[in-house]
Amino acid sequence: MSKSKTALVISAHSADFVWRAGGAIALHASLGYEVTVVCLSYGERGESAKLWKQEGMTLEKVKAGRRVEAENAAKALDVHDIQFFDLGDYPLELDREAKYRLVDVIRAVQPRFMMSHSHYDPYNTDHAYATNVAMECRMIAQAWGHNPGEKVLGAPQLYLFEPHQTERMGWVPDTFLDISDVWDKKRAAIECMEGQEHLWDYYTNVAENRGNHFRRNSGGQAGGRPARYAEGFQSVYPRTVDEL
Amino acid sequence: MSKSKTALVISAHSADFVWRAGGAIALHASLGYEVTVVCLSYGERGESAKLWKQEGMTLEKVKAGRRVEAENAAKALDVHDIQFFDLGDYPLELDREAKYRLVDVIRAVQPRFMMSHSHYDPYNTDHAYATNVAMECRMIAQAWGHNPGEKVLGAPQLYLFEPHQTERMGWVPDTFLDISDVWDKKRAAIECMEGQEHLWDYYTNVAENRGNHFRRNSGGQAGGRPARYAEGFQSVYPRTVDEL
Amino acid sequence: MSKSKTALVISAHSADFVWRAGGAIALHASLGYEVTVVCLSYGERGESAKLWKQEGMTLEKVKAGRRVEAENAAKALDVHDIQFFDLGDYPLELDREAKYRLVDVIRAVQPRFMMSHSHYDPYNTDHAYATNVAMECRMIAQAWGHNPGEKVLGAPQLYLFEPHQTERMGWVPDTFLDISDVWDKKRAAIECMEGQEHLWDYYTNVAENRGNHFRRNSGGQAGGRPARYAEGFQSVYPRTVDEL
Amino acid sequence: MSKSKTALVISAHSADFVWRAGGAIALHASLGYEVTVVCLSYGERGESAKLWKQEGMTLEKVKAGRRVEAENAAKALDVHDIQFFDLGDYPLELDREAKYRLVDVIRAVQPRFMMSHSHYDPYNTDHAYATNVAMECRMIAQAWGHNPGEKVLGAPQLYLFEPHQTERMGWVPDTFLDISDVWDKKRAAIECMEGQEHLWDYYTNVAENRGNHFRRNSGGQAGGRPARYAEGFQSVYPRTVDEL
Amino acid sequence: MSKSKTALVISAHSADFVWRAGGAIALHASLGYEVTVVCLSYGERGESAKLWKQEGMTLEKVKAGRRVEAENAAKALDVHDIQFFDLGDYPLELDREAKYRLVDVIRAVQPRFMMSHSHYDPYNTDHAYATNVAMECRMIAQAWGHNPGEKVLGAPQLYLFEPHQTERMGWVPDTFLDISDVWDKKRAAIECMEGQEHLWDYYTNVAENRGNHFRRNSGGQAGGRPARYAEGFQSVYPRTVDEL
Amino acid sequence: MSKSKTALVISAHSADFVWRAGGAIALHASLGYEVTVVCLSYGERGESAKLWKQEGMTLEKVKAGRRVEAENAAKALDVHDIQFFDLGDYPLELDREAKYRLVDVIRAVQPRFMMSHSHYDPYNTDHAYATNVAMECRMIAQAWGHNPGEKVLGAPQLYLFEPHQTERMGWVPDTFLDISDVWDKKRAAIECMEGQEHLWDYYTNVAENRGNHFRRNSGGQAGGRPARYAEGFQSVYPRTVDEL
Repeated sequence: MSKSKTALVISAHSADFVWRAGGAIALHASLGYEVTVVCLSYGERGESAKLWKQEGMTLEKVKAGRRVEAENAAKALDVHDIQFFDLGDYPLELDREAKYRLVDVIRAVQPRFMMSHSHYDPYNTDHAYATNVAMECRMIAQAWGHNPGEKVLGAPQLYLFEPHQTERMGWVPDTFLDISDVWDKKRAAIECMEGQEHLWDYYTNVAENRGNHFRRNSGGQAGGRPARYAEGFQSVYPRTVDEL
Repeated sequence: MSKSKTALVISAHSADFVWRAGGAIALHASLGYEVTVVCLSYGERGESAKLWKQEGMTLEKVKAGRRVEAENAAKALDVHDIQFFDLGDYPLELDREAKYRLVDVIRAVQPRFMMSHSHYDPYNTDHAYATNVAMECRMIAQAWGHNPGEKVLGAPQLYLFEPHQTERMGWVPDTFLDISDVWDKKRAAIECMEGQEHLWDYYTNVAENRGNHFRRNSGGQAGGRPARYAEGFQSVYPRTVDEL
Repeated sequence: MSKSKTALVISAHSADFVWRAGGAIALHASLGYEVTVVCLSYGERGESAKLWKQEGMTLEKVKAGRRVEAENAAKALDVHDIQFFDLGDYPLELDREAKYRLVDVIRAVQPRFMMSHSHYDPYNTDHAYATNVAMECRMIAQAWGHNPGEKVLGAPQLYLFEPHQTERMGWVPDTFLDISDVWDKKRAAIECMEGQEHLWDYYTNVAENRGNHFRRNSGGQAGGRPARYAEGFQSVYPRTVDEL
Repeated sequence: MSKSKTALVISAHSADFVWRAGGAIALHASLGYEVTVVCLSYGERGESAKLWKQEGMTLEKVKAGRRVEAENAAKALDVHDIQFFDLGDYPLELDREAKYRLVDVIRAVQPRFMMSHSHYDPYNTDHAYATNVAMECRMIAQAWGHNPGEKVLGAPQLYLFEPHQTERMGWVPDTFLDISDVWDKKRAAIECMEGQEHLWDYYTNVAENRGNHFRRNSGGQAGGRPARYAEGFQSVYPRTVDEL
Repeated sequence: MSKSKTALVISAHSADFVWRAGGAIALHASLGYEVTVVCLSYGERGESAKLWKQEGMTLEKVKAGRRVEAENAAKALDVHDIQFFDLGDYPLELDREAKYRLVDVIRAVQPRFMMSHSHYDPYNTDHAYATNVAMECRMIAQAWGHNPGEKVLGAPQLYLFEPHQTERMGWVPDTFLDISDVWDKKRAAIECMEGQEHLWDYYTNVAENRGNHFRRNSGGQAGGRPARYAEGFQSVYPRTVDEL
Repeated sequence: MSKSKTALVISAHSADFVWRAGGAIALHASLGYEVTVVCLSYGERGESAKLWKQEGMTLEKVKAGRRVEAENAAKALDVHDIQFFDLGDYPLELDREAKYRLVDVIRAVQPRFMMSHSHYDPYNTDHAYATNVAMECRMIAQAWGHNPGEKVLGAPQLYLFEPHQTERMGWVPDTFLDISDVWDKKRAAIECMEGQEHLWDYYTNVAENRGNHFRRNSGGQAGGRPARYAEGFQSVYPRTVDEL
């Protein structure tokens, strides 16, 4: 059921994984990872202003439109599997059944690492909620008494991807990933988000400036790596290593 | 002057590198690193209570005794080079000349990573002072206008090794290093510190419990690595990586 | 439905808006604002000790008494509209219906700014809960897909008013408001809270000392404004300005 | 109903009180306290890996086994009363009825102090949840309008006992308790936890090293108390004293 | 030289100990403590605006006036010994000689507890500087190699007394002391500060409101102690106790 | 000597004011402010890599080149007065004489607001040092006993301008300033920094993305202001206002 190299991205709304982790997804796909994306909602109520401004719009049409965009973006990023939980947004809520469904995915994927949102977001309570759920479901997936007989989860890292207005979220990146080689894929995925065109350049700027941070932290003018685009992540758990 | 694999440990007092980074030193030596240790002081005034309780003790005798202990420990850990700056302790202070001397060492070593104390220590202001100096001298070593013509420093990580009473220091480990293979060397080095025998078991307990943390964070009962001894470190700067 | 100058205060219990924001309410009323107050509960179980010590007291009597006090205080402060959601206290809980009711008020009022409690309160979990709800409902009110066709909310500031024992709540005021001109109204409103007479002088002291802080921060002995009474607030979101 | 010297420990899973507060329990029992322990769950799903690896294991068998272990440990620690709420774990959840049941216990015990978990635990969301519930139920127990006529709660301290991997939990001990005199009882209680033998030495190391912290903070080499074993606690509320 | 019950207050400017610790001083004097106060400066430049507004004022006159006020206040508080280091203010600076002078006092007094300012103060950098010096000199006083043969210091608590605008200083009180019995002495000492009459009522308000906090934290309406005046303190080090 | 509308920017190195506050400077100049810039050093050693890579470079040549660049940028931004303290960099240090020189400038300018760097910067210790000095000199400038007879300083806000890698510096913007109208001037000033061309686009991206943050925080898609470029600032002190 699980493959040796896998990753799991838990996205509160259907576009979050593109802006915030698109480079990591495409890069790891290129490294042989099977990356699964779970969209807990479509962001249909709260992140689809442009659609709602159209005549005759309905919730179902918005959801369908958002789904197509997300599927296209997933394709552009070489996502292995994208799942839509369709749990509603603004607010997003998971009952126990929905949590167990997420646990099932975690156990099936057996990810080497997981990704989700920042711990705190005063603009968007769905984001922090998704992260809390990610931590809770990771814990349940590790429980030997949950669906005994299934393969229990190890201890994958949980990376928090970059929120909007990072400093107000208390998000501090500890890891920069060079995504220069897959930037074209990320930009293509970004452009699938037709309803949020105002963010295309915003996240391109972010990627360029994180590239600067990568260069600085890899040596700067004295040997730094010439990364052009990067993504930043905050780790929830410590690393375990054999060499510093 | 510099070699491809090097590291630099900046120790406020002559025993700190043993308790707090002895495993990392011995392990990286076994991996082919040349590890340099700089002891800014001998800890002669503040960390030599047992010696001072002896009859007829003098500052010079204490320093000589502490130096021998540190040299023996360094040998046990396969330290490449140990330097004693003899700057005095309780309080430790570096004037500009002393800082430039440390910059000279940093540039000569060109470390892949550096190590020093926690950012804060209300029990021991020398410790946080040494870390501030380490950050300042790292910055000076990166300046193209400092001794122009010398090879400037890149951007090595600065790892903060484990202080005493971690929680009161605001120290949070983000990296656990498996030191099981070199534990015998670390214990041997610890036993060189004859004046602080009351700490031998203390730091053995620390290493065992950090081993537990390593096991948990590498997978726990579902695939965790059976590390028996570990050391923890806090990173000051973000990592730059090609794979998460 | 909405007027150009409006504000909305979300109060966990029916007296909170008086102690913590009475001056801001009366002052903005005097500036032409229509201020709406929502009392999520009466504080009938947890903040009515004096009433409960009377013979033959019932929950309904306590609620009725608390309501009268709050209405009188609202009148003294020139509140435009006070609404009692009567959701119960100790603990306070809002289901989705109650949240949507609050969203309806937010949208109807279209406040220039909102007010609620501190982010954290280990003595009174209702307070932090109310603030979380305020942030969540502000978010829902901004969603174009929530009751499409209604006027969506802009981005009003959320001010956290002063809790009891500020330092233990992690509350840090960034804005002091001079309420000297309306102090008499605030004191009158305070005296409407007959069941909590032990707090009258407490919050008078607070207002006087915040007046001192206002004077200091507006210039101190070199040009500070002679405010006699003030209130402090913590902002959740950044300000957007044309001049610093 | 209540006795002059009482304490209440709220344990998310049935073994937590042993590792984290066993010394405090036994010591206060020896001082004449009646200590009540509430185990909100048995930890049957998430903290019983060893049992689940046995053939033919069922949830009921795990719970029964965990209960016996906890009862034996409680006996070893001279616990006055141990109550099992059997609310389930991974995740632990309390509805209003369960909270009121806990409030009933708090009021019946009228504890001088309470104990629970750290405020945050990214590995185990049950732990922080239990602490939130402890604060909420302490608040309800103080409400004069909750079950009017009952003796309301005063303001007992809530001590947060030591979590696993303290630094990642943001847990900072402010109080060290000398448990040397009752160490044998704590070790005996620890050994009742047959399913978690891998933690016996871990928590013995913790107790020894906290003993070192006790010695240091009580005077170190200049008059410190020769405590051999200690436990650390973080206080949620300030102390009120007549002498510093 | 030292007596069994002693305390040491380190005051950056000559009036700080009155506003911030006057109650603790008078109370402990009444309990048999010999309390020593060290005024590092007179606050002659920065905290004597009223004097400087007088005609013909000189630095020496200001210092003399401030000294008389501080001596009078010390008398009112039953201070055992007050020492003026006269090191200058705005900014305050201690060279090594001055630090060793303070170490001499610490060792001579052998205080059960020490007091100084908050860790941080963006309005008054002298305050945080004094606290850093207090921690550094406490460390030196503990060093067996500093003036060998002298009685070294144990591990006295360092209490941080209440700053102005507490929340902006990151100061969080963990201990409230009932000073009702000595309030008259504190008020008398406060009134010795003739040049800062604008602060008399300010700190009276503080004492009254801290009295409210004392009452709440000692039991509130269900058994709280009827303290009328209190002072709050933040502890730098953990406590070591035999009973919680 | 002072004018009604003035501001003061304290820049550790000669280019910092351009990247971090160029928009605020030009905007306030356009509003009639006289803006003074103090460059504590030229950044000659640490921030002039490109110059040092040229043949035959000397410290004096670097300083001269950096000065010309800064003067040109100041002209582009309509700076009223730019002063070069030439105190050296990497590390920057101010003795008492240099601090008093800065105090003289502060008092002469009598700024409505001041600006400097973030509180913390592990990459560049000069930056946090400059901010500490700014707070200290602000305090000295407020002292009635410092050069009695001079006009003492009121209580101007100290804005911390945007550092590189904001999240690692603990910098949190609370104020966004719309600089769209003066963006051309800022870009022109940026292009004066010929030695740091790699940062031109970096800070253009920053300004664009801060423009996005301005739009979001001023109302987003429901009435937000269409700012194209913005700068963010963190306030050290609270605001004092008459309307929220």
